[in-house]
Amino acid sequence: MSKYQHIKDEAYAANMQLPKLGLVLFTFGNVSAVDRSLGVFAIKPSGVPYEDLTPDSMVIVDFDANTVEGNLRPSSDTKTHAVLYKHWDSIGGVVHTHSTYGTSWAQAQRDIPIFGTTHADHLTTDIPCAPPMDDAMIKGNYEYETGFQIMNHFNKFNLDYKEVEMILVGNHAPFTWGKTAAKAVYNSAVLECVAQMAYLTEQINPQAPRLKDTLINKHFQRKHGPDSYYGQS
Amino acid sequence: MSKYQHIKDEAYAANMQLPKLGLVLFTFGNVSAVDRSLGVFAIKPSGVPYEDLTPDSMVIVDFDANTVEGNLRPSSDTKTHAVLYKHWDSIGGVVHTHSTYGTSWAQAQRDIPIFGTTHADHLTTDIPCAPPMDDAMIKGNYEYETGFQIMNHFNKFNLDYKEVEMILVGNHAPFTWGKTAAKAVYNSAVLECVAQMAYLTEQINPQAPRLKDTLINKHFQRKHGPDSYYGQS
Amino acid sequence: MSKYQHIKDEAYAANMQLPKLGLVLFTFGNVSAVDRSLGVFAIKPSGVPYEDLTPDSMVIVDFDANTVEGNLRPSSDTKTHAVLYKHWDSIGGVVHTHSTYGTSWAQAQRDIPIFGTTHADHLTTDIPCAPPMDDAMIKGNYEYETGFQIMNHFNKFNLDYKEVEMILVGNHAPFTWGKTAAKAVYNSAVLECVAQMAYLTEQINPQAPRLKDTLINKHFQRKHGPDSYYGQS
Amino acid sequence: MSKYQHIKDEAYAANMQLPKLGLVLFTFGNVSAVDRSLGVFAIKPSGVPYEDLTPDSMVIVDFDANTVEGNLRPSSDTKTHAVLYKHWDSIGGVVHTHSTYGTSWAQAQRDIPIFGTTHADHLTTDIPCAPPMDDAMIKGNYEYETGFQIMNHFNKFNLDYKEVEMILVGNHAPFTWGKTAAKAVYNSAVLECVAQMAYLTEQINPQAPRLKDTLINKHFQRKHGPDSYYGQS
Repeated sequence: MSKYQHIKDEAYAANMQLPKLGLVLFTFGNVSAVDRSLGVFAIKPSGVPYEDLTPDSMVIVDFDANTVEGNLRPSSDTKTHAVLYKHWDSIGGVVHTHSTYGTSWAQAQRDIPIFGTTHADHLTTDIPCAPPMDDAMIKGNYEYETGFQIMNHFNKFNLDYKEVEMILVGNHAPFTWGKTAAKAVYNSAVLECVAQMAYLTEQINPQAPRLKDTLINKHFQRKHGPDSYYGQS
Repeated sequence: MSKYQHIKDEAYAANMQLPKLGLVLFTFGNVSAVDRSLGVFAIKPSGVPYEDLTPDSMVIVDFDANTVEGNLRPSSDTKTHAVLYKHWDSIGGVVHTHSTYGTSWAQAQRDIPIFGTTHADHLTTDIPCAPPMDDAMIKGNYEYETGFQIMNHFNKFNLDYKEVEMILVGNHAPFTWGKTAAKAVYNSAVLECVAQMAYLTEQINPQAPRLKDTLINKHFQRKHGPDSYYGQS
Repeated sequence: MSKYQHIKDEAYAANMQLPKLGLVLFTFGNVSAVDRSLGVFAIKPSGVPYEDLTPDSMVIVDFDANTVEGNLRPSSDTKTHAVLYKHWDSIGGVVHTHSTYGTSWAQAQRDIPIFGTTHADHLTTDIPCAPPMDDAMIKGNYEYETGFQIMNHFNKFNLDYKEVEMILVGNHAPFTWGKTAAKAVYNSAVLECVAQMAYLTEQINPQAPRLKDTLINKHFQRKHGPDSYYGQS
Repeated sequence: MSKYQHIKDEAYAANMQLPKLGLVLFTFGNVSAVDRSLGVFAIKPSGVPYEDLTPDSMVIVDFDANTVEGNLRPSSDTKTHAVLYKHWDSIGGVVHTHSTYGTSWAQAQRDIPIFGTTHADHLTTDIPCAPPMDDAMIKGNYEYETGFQIMNHFNKFNLDYKEVEMILVGNHAPFTWGKTAAKAVYNSAVLECVAQMAYLTEQINPQAPRLKDTLINKHFQRKHGPDSYYGQS
């Protein structure tokens, strides 16, 4: 058995959640799961339909995107995952999808405004939308640069990747991450849900105001603060 | 067997309807069922996925939100349920969801206008939207105050909780209730259906008028009046 | 065995298509099937969930809405069905739903414009929306008058019920009919499909023009004209 | 066994994907698969429900739309398929649907703007919308002329059918094609997905700009260029 079996299993299980949650059409998405002690992550192979995946079809890649184990070509977005793992040292899983509402906000090149407690239960800011990449980045090492586009946006706006576990890349689509691959998939589903509600909110009331700070803080703290009282832990 | 088994069973069955009716993502919702002779209600445990629920995982809580039986922490919204049971003495079940269209109207901070007979079959007024809570209430005993925010809004606008079995809390999401937990879940599904149709109605005709009083009364009375002739009772 | 078994079976099978086609929530819809030689029709009992229906729970009613056979109360909309069967002598089935998009156009009090060939494959006019009923009709024999509201609208606009097998009743919801109950259900699904596309068409292009007459006639004739060449008959 | 069995099987399997992918209501769609060495294609019979189809119910037709084998009448759109096979010699499958979002753009008589990478992964231009056909074409050999309407639009705008494998016919609905019937179905699903996102993008931001050329080229080339690195081939 491969010494990477545990992350192959984790990445496989998380990838299989994407079609179940309605977040992908065909192969338009991928999930990876990391083992930091081994310095590698397991990621979906490129272009393989979900129904054909097995744990052993996951590809093992290092943080410079070199394949370490596996017979298939890894996801075309592998370098973006690699960059995020290399520079953000507390994340355990990364997800990329082209989910319907999240991608539409990315195409609209707008941050998703924080309109309610569903959003505030998960993060305290608008869901950021990084601008489309500049031509030099696109023509260069594109997927590698996509990782930097994400990190640069977080740095420019003083966002903390441990609290804001999601971003839209302008004209492209969402990326999310989390402590585990399963949590990163959960975040992709939350982003899609919040994106749909924000769209509908603006249709129902074009002057809908952002959520006020007291409600933002209350909801985020009750789930994530030191005195959180949501869940069983 | 617990002397609370009957309300654990009732609350469990009603909770399991939420994902089946498409009203929740992950754990974003909860249902409770009351036994007034015992002065307690059974409610979903906090943050437990629906597929992991059993009747015995329901938590028994009194009307001051003290846990009476159960090893798990009750829903983070338990105090809101408790306040409603304590003050509205004819309700048998309470539901809270973040259903897509209902939550979007709550985020838009608008009452849902009564546009048609689907709405009038269930209530004779717009579906009320309470304003977002003030900062003192949010920073205080938040979920407890949410119950009062709901009741205060009913009092201010002379609404009768026995007829209007649903409300939106501004920037947050819907709450519904009913004579049983199953009826409260039914009301959550009706609210979501009516919320979607009202959104579409305004998109199709921004000048769509509210339903006239004769039709409101006719439809409500044929289902709920003394001479009602809907159903088999 | 009841001498009405064949229409009970037909009405049952057609009713069970409504939830399968996504046209009803809970019990918000009903189908009937007629036997003109016997002068009766079979209709869904009022307020009974679809999953509890059996062929034998269908109620047999005459064209004056008197129950002829069956232990349950017939649909609250029975008189509307009876009026349509009594006056339109070639229809074999009637359907009433509160389907999402059709009902939203009814609430918007607008005819559904004929924008494309999907619509023209089934009828050559806009889908008519009768105005909300006047107060005298509502306060009188409401469901009976609903049937006349439908027929009066057809008469006023010279519509032929054999060609236009559907209508919206303003502020209420769709009614459809056809040579059989199954065809009437088919028409309800077509109405919902066309209603959704017309809504989207206006959102995408508020100046979208109606379909021109040559295309209307071509598509309707190839399915319904004397030289039709669609299908296997 | 028929010497056409392989394309009957291919056409059958591809037709059965349409309802599975949510692209058709009832019989509103059809797929064909060609064998160029035999000069024929297999196509869905007209008006037969998908659940009743078998491989042997597929009809074998030549490029002038004459039936070569089969007891059923072929799809009413057969002549359009025949024209495309006859003139575009590298396509192996053709699909016609009335999918919800694609048809709504066709009814709106608008090209679908290229707003993001999901679109650019598949083609480098807007998805073209041919104008509604002129009256002479409609009154003449309608389905045959529909094929020419598609080809004329490609010629007029210098579009390459090998790269742009999809079109909307104004006031009508989408047609797609590809090297195989399965690929043509894939393209129908991509068109529907892109059509929904483009609709939402304009709702979220009416001033959303088209995707810039560098991103269009990057995404198309990484999937389709000589140095493509998507998938396993």
